[in-house]
Amino acid sequence: MSNLKIDAERLWGDLMRTAEIGGTSDGGIARLTLSDDDRRMRDWLRAQCDTLGLATTVDEAGNMFATRAGARPDLPAIAMGSHLDTQPTGGKFDGVLGVLAGLEVLRTLDAAGYQTEAPLMLVNWTNEEGSRFSPAMLGSGIWAGVYGREYGDARTDVTGDTFGASLDRIGYRGEAKAGAIRFGAMFELHIEQGPILEAEGKQIGVVQGIQGMRWFDLTMTGVAAHTGSTPMGMRRNALLAMARVIDGIDRIAKSHSDAVGTIGFLDVSPNSHNVIPGKVRATIDLRHPSDAVLDQMEAETATLVREVAETVGLEYSFEPISRTAAVAFNPDCIASVRAGAKAAGYTTRDIISGAGHDAAHAAAVAPTTMIFVPSAGGLSHNPAESTESHECAAGAQVLLEAVLDYDRCMAEARKEIA
Amino acid sequence: MSNLKIDAERLWGDLMRTAEIGGTSDGGIARLTLSDDDRRMRDWLRAQCDTLGLATTVDEAGNMFATRAGARPDLPAIAMGSHLDTQPTGGKFDGVLGVLAGLEVLRTLDAAGYQTEAPLMLVNWTNEEGSRFSPAMLGSGIWAGVYGREYGDARTDVTGDTFGASLDRIGYRGEAKAGAIRFGAMFELHIEQGPILEAEGKQIGVVQGIQGMRWFDLTMTGVAAHTGSTPMGMRRNALLAMARVIDGIDRIAKSHSDAVGTIGFLDVSPNSHNVIPGKVRATIDLRHPSDAVLDQMEAETATLVREVAETVGLEYSFEPISRTAAVAFNPDCIASVRAGAKAAGYTTRDIISGAGHDAAHAAAVAPTTMIFVPSAGGLSHNPAESTESHECAAGAQVLLEAVLDYDRCMAEARKEIA
Repeated sequence: MSNLKIDAERLWGDLMRTAEIGGTSDGGIARLTLSDDDRRMRDWLRAQCDTLGLATTVDEAGNMFATRAGARPDLPAIAMGSHLDTQPTGGKFDGVLGVLAGLEVLRTLDAAGYQTEAPLMLVNWTNEEGSRFSPAMLGSGIWAGVYGREYGDARTDVTGDTFGASLDRIGYRGEAKAGAIRFGAMFELHIEQGPILEAEGKQIGVVQGIQGMRWFDLTMTGVAAHTGSTPMGMRRNALLAMARVIDGIDRIAKSHSDAVGTIGFLDVSPNSHNVIPGKVRATIDLRHPSDAVLDQMEAETATLVREVAETVGLEYSFEPISRTAAVAFNPDCIASVRAGAKAAGYTTRDIISGAGHDAAHAAAVAPTTMIFVPSAGGLSHNPAESTESHECAAGAQVLLEAVLDYDRCMAEARKEIA
Repeated sequence: MSNLKIDAERLWGDLMRTAEIGGTSDGGIARLTLSDDDRRMRDWLRAQCDTLGLATTVDEAGNMFATRAGARPDLPAIAMGSHLDTQPTGGKFDGVLGVLAGLEVLRTLDAAGYQTEAPLMLVNWTNEEGSRFSPAMLGSGIWAGVYGREYGDARTDVTGDTFGASLDRIGYRGEAKAGAIRFGAMFELHIEQGPILEAEGKQIGVVQGIQGMRWFDLTMTGVAAHTGSTPMGMRRNALLAMARVIDGIDRIAKSHSDAVGTIGFLDVSPNSHNVIPGKVRATIDLRHPSDAVLDQMEAETATLVREVAETVGLEYSFEPISRTAAVAFNPDCIASVRAGAKAAGYTTRDIISGAGHDAAHAAAVAPTTMIFVPSAGGLSHNPAESTESHECAAGAQVLLEAVLDYDRCMAEARKEIA
């Protein structure tokens, strides 16, 4: 463990000050990616890095990288970071905490004159949220080679503006080719966006990976008919069938530990008080840390849907619309987080991320993990999103300790090999 | 039985010709109450009555009454009729069949020089559909004293026009006070708007009454949360609860013979793919021919809702929004329909109306019943609504026979009393 201590007040001050960039009257932030507010926030970050004497490099997807030299310039950097964009109804912590905590770590090291072996790198990924330009995690996805630059540039928002033109407009199209700037490991501090840490009274979530996620489009088609004059035995009620699927998905998810399964979106037609619904469309969302369990849940869901449709006497279509493989984070990175939390004296809990994060793309390229801090009431993507100052500080302290631990462990490993 | 025969071709010709007044390109009719098309249709009807030498009286709610003299002018009239307005996506038979069949009966009697004992009366009720001005069956309701004239006049459509001003505008505000024009009995021919007669291959529905109907507003309130990061055990999923209520309502309705129960309208919030629904609102529609059974169904529904909300851990509100008592039609009128159908050689089935009709208000004032003819596929309020020419003719023939039978039976009864 280090004897370094991040400055909790300085971090909180940065969080509250920058929350005004795109801040909303209800205490949230609406700082959509590649907006003028996003540019102002990026300018602020670059200015802070300048103050630390760190040059910021921007790649062609607008991802920002600021590197602090280590004792061994030949080693790949250890990265910290997250994203600065928010949802239209975003809160003050989702994304920005991971970037500002990384900045706080760099400031703490600077103040102490501490030099790591490997260089350190602060990263801000473009368009994590995906609410203006779909898909989410686009910047890290382009960086990781999952998406091509052309694909990214062509994404459009509801007004018809493209990602590429918006990037040019705010002046954050960098020279560096996507993927040309590499790092040797990545630590992303983030709020949990779920209720588990708070409910169990734990300070730090030691994130093991990200759930695999499968989305399906389900349409049940029966016959719309008068609610008064159609006897029960002659109905083909699409909403009745969907109701049984909603209940069945809940049952399937509860039968697999660590699984979640939900229908959150319904389109009922004609959706009239006195008409039996003839058609109902839904999105089914299944998640689990193991792709094998997801395979099983998917098979059970397909059976459920077929059986319900047969019983109620309906046609249906059940189509996958997206599949994201489960991500297992790097054991060395996880060990450093655990060691860092222990050193700093925080209570921990192993946890799986239910939401997607840039760390998923990073993990495909370099050893990666995440650190979670509690979200009050599990609320996120909401102006009422709340993580207290001491909780943010705990996350930043663990980020510092984990990065230093990882740097030391890698140095030990190199010695052993040598 | 009479040896009179209605003219099937003339009736069909009238149906098809008047379907052009407000006719839509998809073969339906959009003849909203008190529109210019409604005025044209009313003018057409009045002109037909003029041709028969019948004066048309209009009351202050726009209801139209044309009387054909009987041998005994002191007797109250036997009425036939229905409504000429349609839904915005109406078909060619709902309502208009009952009025044009009544007209056809009067023509047939005229051609044969047949005079009934009691006068006969043709009625067109204003705003049966209720799709422009709520509530439905407003004209017959004002006539029956259920609603006051002031209440009726103040009903507004979506553009802010009032019922009263619209009535004045099309020139169908009559001099007669609502309820001043009375009749001694009423027979309403209507399409079934359900699938039963077609499914059982019966030509005539001998309608026993109209189901009682209760509507409830149900709101389930849980907590909106992320579908990925909220464990199954920590959810308060309002859509899961509503799904169980939808299934439970279906179960309750199936456990009472002749009952129907449906949720046709849902409002899911926030209705997003990756958010557990925090709030879901629905309308519950329960119907049964017996108010006592409806009481029981309502109690079972209240228990269902409470138990589901407790199990899922939600708040809820369950509020009645409308209650219509069941209507039992007059046994003498029903007997005349049965006798008329038998005399004409049609197959019959006793049936309960699942939909509301003007006959419900008429029944509160005078002996009343209805005659149903099949609706292909049970479809109604739909441009594809379809009843064949021979089926319409069968209905009109039974209407003729029933009215003559009722007239004869009443004459017999008067003799017995005398």
